[in-house]
Amino acid sequence: MAEQHIASAFDRDLEAIQAKIMKMGGLVEAAILDAAQSLDTRDEELAEKVRAGDKAIDALEEMINEDAARLIALRAPTAGDLRIVLSVMKISANLERIGDYAKNMAKRTSILSQMSQIAGSNAALRRMAREVNEMLKDALDSYIQRDVAKAQDVIARDADVDQMYNALFREFLTFMMEDPRNITACMHLHFMAKNTERMGDHVTSIAEQVVYLVTGDAPEDRPKQDVTSTDRTLAPS
Amino acid sequence: MAEQHIASAFDRDLEAIQAKIMKMGGLVEAAILDAAQSLDTRDEELAEKVRAGDKAIDALEEMINEDAARLIALRAPTAGDLRIVLSVMKISANLERIGDYAKNMAKRTSILSQMSQIAGSNAALRRMAREVNEMLKDALDSYIQRDVAKAQDVIARDADVDQMYNALFREFLTFMMEDPRNITACMHLHFMAKNTERMGDHVTSIAEQVVYLVTGDAPEDRPKQDVTSTDRTLAPS
Repeated sequence: MAEQHIASAFDRDLEAIQAKIMKMGGLVEAAILDAAQSLDTRDEELAEKVRAGDKAIDALEEMINEDAARLIALRAPTAGDLRIVLSVMKISANLERIGDYAKNMAKRTSILSQMSQIAGSNAALRRMAREVNEMLKDALDSYIQRDVAKAQDVIARDADVDQMYNALFREFLTFMMEDPRNITACMHLHFMAKNTERMGDHVTSIAEQVVYLVTGDAPEDRPKQDVTSTDRTLAPS
Repeated sequence: MAEQHIASAFDRDLEAIQAKIMKMGGLVEAAILDAAQSLDTRDEELAEKVRAGDKAIDALEEMINEDAARLIALRAPTAGDLRIVLSVMKISANLERIGDYAKNMAKRTSILSQMSQIAGSNAALRRMAREVNEMLKDALDSYIQRDVAKAQDVIARDADVDQMYNALFREFLTFMMEDPRNITACMHLHFMAKNTERMGDHVTSIAEQVVYLVTGDAPEDRPKQDVTSTDRTLAPS
């Protein structure tokens, strides 16, 4: 009877924390889309909103960490439950980092809006951001539903984001070599592309947490699909 | 008497975790220096060592998180002690991220060793890495000694790292504009510079944790010194 009581108190506390994770997820999803849109439409006000909004995301992570620690201290969860609480802390850390990347992207909107546009790049970045946003939605769904198949689908889709990044990297190199006046803009755009690619990595980490939680299998070492740091064909002859 | 016993058991457990933090710190410090050295001396073997060594750093973070959770569950620490345990988890997360940046830097060594050198940049990057390494040593010392003055000194020195990054960013732009054949190398070098600058941010976070732990004051919002994302003078006219 006492055990029953403790178990449901744990579940209730956990649910409250998970609600905060969902709230945080919603804010981060919006930040991703808004950051990419602010670039595409040169909307500095929207960019400023993303930058200012990161504080709320950081505050939620702080709260989730404290709630989780209190939950552990108060309920002394079993090994399995402890694993769930630790996964919540990891997921909120991933969300916080994705929010950071969105903020960093938004910072570059105003400087980029001073420069001539690089054909097609804003739309390509926005497509990438949209894909990461969809992945994040699905990753959080898979967490709530403990849906391993959905989580594995998210993990697989990260390769698409990496491909998009690789294509953009090559495009930016070409633009810069064609015309030195493109260099500064391309440096900033490249950062934004890399930030988006890193967001995809963190979404993948969330999905891997779900697989680990449900199956107990530690995520395998996944091959990195960002080949730009090692691909020798990118070295000029 | 019982309370005394609980307190010292907590302290003993905490010390064991802090020893792991110090071990992790040592590995990360070496990774920073080795990554920068591998670039400067074109030492691909050393770069590979840095990349492979990141696994040990990640494993330590995992262990520290689990130990910390177990400590909380077992000892149900008071608010003040709980704050210490949470700070340990944050510091290990910062160390893990610094290790990641070092790994990412080392990844670029082999592609960069295929390219013609950009005058002075390797040495400049190495100076930056050395400064971050010194800051990290001092940040971890300040943590162990609960030395607020030393922590605040670390926080102040991050501005120097940011200045070094800003200078390098401008230099890379110039090199790229002068000769398009420099573009690819400069893109990679710029990434390494940015990674080093981000390492400095994480070292600063560690120092801020120390200030928070000792004084209870949340770190103030510090002004970002990487001006390249917002400095309009970098926009070509």
